[in-house]
Amino acid sequence: MSGLKGKVVIAQGGGPTVVINQSLVGAVLESRKFSEVTRVWGARHGVRGIVHQSFVDLSEATTHNLERVAQTPSSALGSTRDKPDAEYCQNILNVFKKHEVRYFFYIGGNDSSDTVRIVGEYAVKEGYELRAIHIPKTVDNDLPVNDHCPGYPSAARFVAGAFRGANSDNMALQGVYIAVIMGRHAGWLTAASALARQHDDDGPHLIYLPERQFSIDRYLADIERVYQRHGRCVIAISEGVWANRDGKGKEIPLAADLMRKAGRQPEVDAHGNVQLSGGALADELAATVQGGLGIKRVRADTFGYLQRSFPGVVSDVDAREAREVGEKAAHYACGQGVSGSVVIKRAGDYAARYELADVRQIAAQTRHMPDEFINAEGNNVTDAFRAYLRPLLGDGMPSLERLWAPAVTFNGG
Amino acid sequence: MSGLKGKVVIAQGGGPTVVINQSLVGAVLESRKFSEVTRVWGARHGVRGIVHQSFVDLSEATTHNLERVAQTPSSALGSTRDKPDAEYCQNILNVFKKHEVRYFFYIGGNDSSDTVRIVGEYAVKEGYELRAIHIPKTVDNDLPVNDHCPGYPSAARFVAGAFRGANSDNMALQGVYIAVIMGRHAGWLTAASALARQHDDDGPHLIYLPERQFSIDRYLADIERVYQRHGRCVIAISEGVWANRDGKGKEIPLAADLMRKAGRQPEVDAHGNVQLSGGALADELAATVQGGLGIKRVRADTFGYLQRSFPGVVSDVDAREAREVGEKAAHYACGQGVSGSVVIKRAGDYAARYELADVRQIAAQTRHMPDEFINAEGNNVTDAFRAYLRPLLGDGMPSLERLWAPAVTFNGG
Repeated sequence: MSGLKGKVVIAQGGGPTVVINQSLVGAVLESRKFSEVTRVWGARHGVRGIVHQSFVDLSEATTHNLERVAQTPSSALGSTRDKPDAEYCQNILNVFKKHEVRYFFYIGGNDSSDTVRIVGEYAVKEGYELRAIHIPKTVDNDLPVNDHCPGYPSAARFVAGAFRGANSDNMALQGVYIAVIMGRHAGWLTAASALARQHDDDGPHLIYLPERQFSIDRYLADIERVYQRHGRCVIAISEGVWANRDGKGKEIPLAADLMRKAGRQPEVDAHGNVQLSGGALADELAATVQGGLGIKRVRADTFGYLQRSFPGVVSDVDAREAREVGEKAAHYACGQGVSGSVVIKRAGDYAARYELADVRQIAAQTRHMPDEFINAEGNNVTDAFRAYLRPLLGDGMPSLERLWAPAVTFNGG
Repeated sequence: MSGLKGKVVIAQGGGPTVVINQSLVGAVLESRKFSEVTRVWGARHGVRGIVHQSFVDLSEATTHNLERVAQTPSSALGSTRDKPDAEYCQNILNVFKKHEVRYFFYIGGNDSSDTVRIVGEYAVKEGYELRAIHIPKTVDNDLPVNDHCPGYPSAARFVAGAFRGANSDNMALQGVYIAVIMGRHAGWLTAASALARQHDDDGPHLIYLPERQFSIDRYLADIERVYQRHGRCVIAISEGVWANRDGKGKEIPLAADLMRKAGRQPEVDAHGNVQLSGGALADELAATVQGGLGIKRVRADTFGYLQRSFPGVVSDVDAREAREVGEKAAHYACGQGVSGSVVIKRAGDYAARYELADVRQIAAQTRHMPDEFINAEGNNVTDAFRAYLRPLLGDGMPSLERLWAPAVTFNGG
């Protein structure tokens, strides 16, 4: 027991996932068990709810309600895209001091971990005892130190399942099918499409990731080769692919290039990220294939927000781990009295264990796919990646069956 | 028993669904039981496989393989968008005569039923005994006489589920969310989004269907009203909405208008249908809200091909009925020696029964949503529609839970 009496404040930041409420519920139920914890408050809409003192009292939520919320997609407390600056973080700390909040749990990605870091540092500077824990969450799977991030396995399951369906659709009607997948800086979610393949000639036949520079010429040559071989082609491409750099050497997302070309100014968020959603990239990539290769039936989808919020498409491994990182946050903060970021490590094939990392190792950094997960041509993933992802997808992925019936042959036609 | 000895040819046409293989397998397994049936052939890629004499021998498919194929999305035999003209239909009949095909089962939508009609009429004219059965299938749910069409309930389940997730995502991050749904001429699938709602303030708050003329002004006024009330707005809109008519009074899809405006010539298929897929409509509708109402966070998705091919998102009611219409085709043709289109009727709340209709009642016609299913303002559906669809979605739709915890109140702040 940490012996430090006070309230818990828990919040959810950034994009939702289908298992982020597992982490919320794990942390709430577990921290309610500690006698040090006087009250468990949930902040509405992330850090915004803290500075506006907009809280709900989770000490009074029923266990049954919480257990059902755990199985519900998206952030039950509400989320925010606010990126707190120094003053914002100071305000957070002031609210904590005012209400004797001694435990702060923030479930989120890179930016949320940075907020935990700053608020924690301010507390130390002011001599205010605060246990601040970052609980990992991101479908992008791009947090350092972690083997993988809660939310990613379920989103990966959605993407792999979607490509199983899209591949069989493409087998039926032929032509070229392109789908654009979430993942601004890292290709983890796009790469998950590779797990759709059951037969050697199953799509996706080509996978393009933001870890490699994109070239329209190579893209067209790749598709032409696959199309000549299979009479069809299925392609997975990350929304974050880039073909050019700006004057400062920064990669320009192809989607932003295309939006500007179409006369629209891409939206930029508080973190300086250009908005990538929308169908322009997929449409343009399809039109390029029609124009460049003369293939008539070219279809393109953008999986969009379904990837992170589709109810029922959940990896049981992911749900369990998301729950456990929430529980561990309570153990570390309320039980052991320490601060940091809960991380998932891989132990064997497959088991997970949890550790507490220094939040400075996590904050505001991006973990890209390592070279050994990407093929030499930069248009596919390796067996090593498939071995990495497979156990995370969980039980009961729908397995598709092909018809096995002999062709009818005629003598002399 | 019909007493007519000969082969069965079965084929799948048009867009795939997640249960179209149930119909295939139902017809194959059932027709293999009739002593009149000498062989069951599957045509590869619909009618195209017939005229090219590209068949597989389904008499030699194992029951186990077939049972697993039944649970696999998309058309296992392959499909086609070919729309046979008179000569094409004559060629089909010639192939049937050459190989003593006496039973023809074609699983498909409006156009497939028309092919069944024409080939059947030619056979009568030439005095060739042929039993031709149309087996209904379409996610568009637009075949006349049927209460609903196999494939639609599962696609509707996907759309309703997707909106449950999208609505909770939108509750977390606020703003406006727009999703464009399949359905060229009829709004059935878009309307299914209404079944996502569990609470009074759940989205979709607005639903736009091709059965009503679309107006950008009314669309913006509707959104503004919802946004002022809820601080957010979720919108379902059909890919087939139209705001204008051409010189001949024909409705011009808004998506085609937008593609032309962007300098692209929309693709037109063999049936004269303008291709509506792609993200341009969603992007434009989002930009219109940002520009017209000054709302910053506006996001748009186009559900695209996932709606009809996502593995595992299947209504058990739909799977059973798709199986049974396939079985009934064999009973009618091989057992009773009659031709026509198998139709689903509703008996009670809820049970289904199957009948055989004259294929001329089905062929090349579109069943729109009736007026009693659409509200007076033309921006939502009615309770009558919800009562119609609910039993079709099947068991086990994910039910989402909201957090129930009291707000923390402060005395004097």
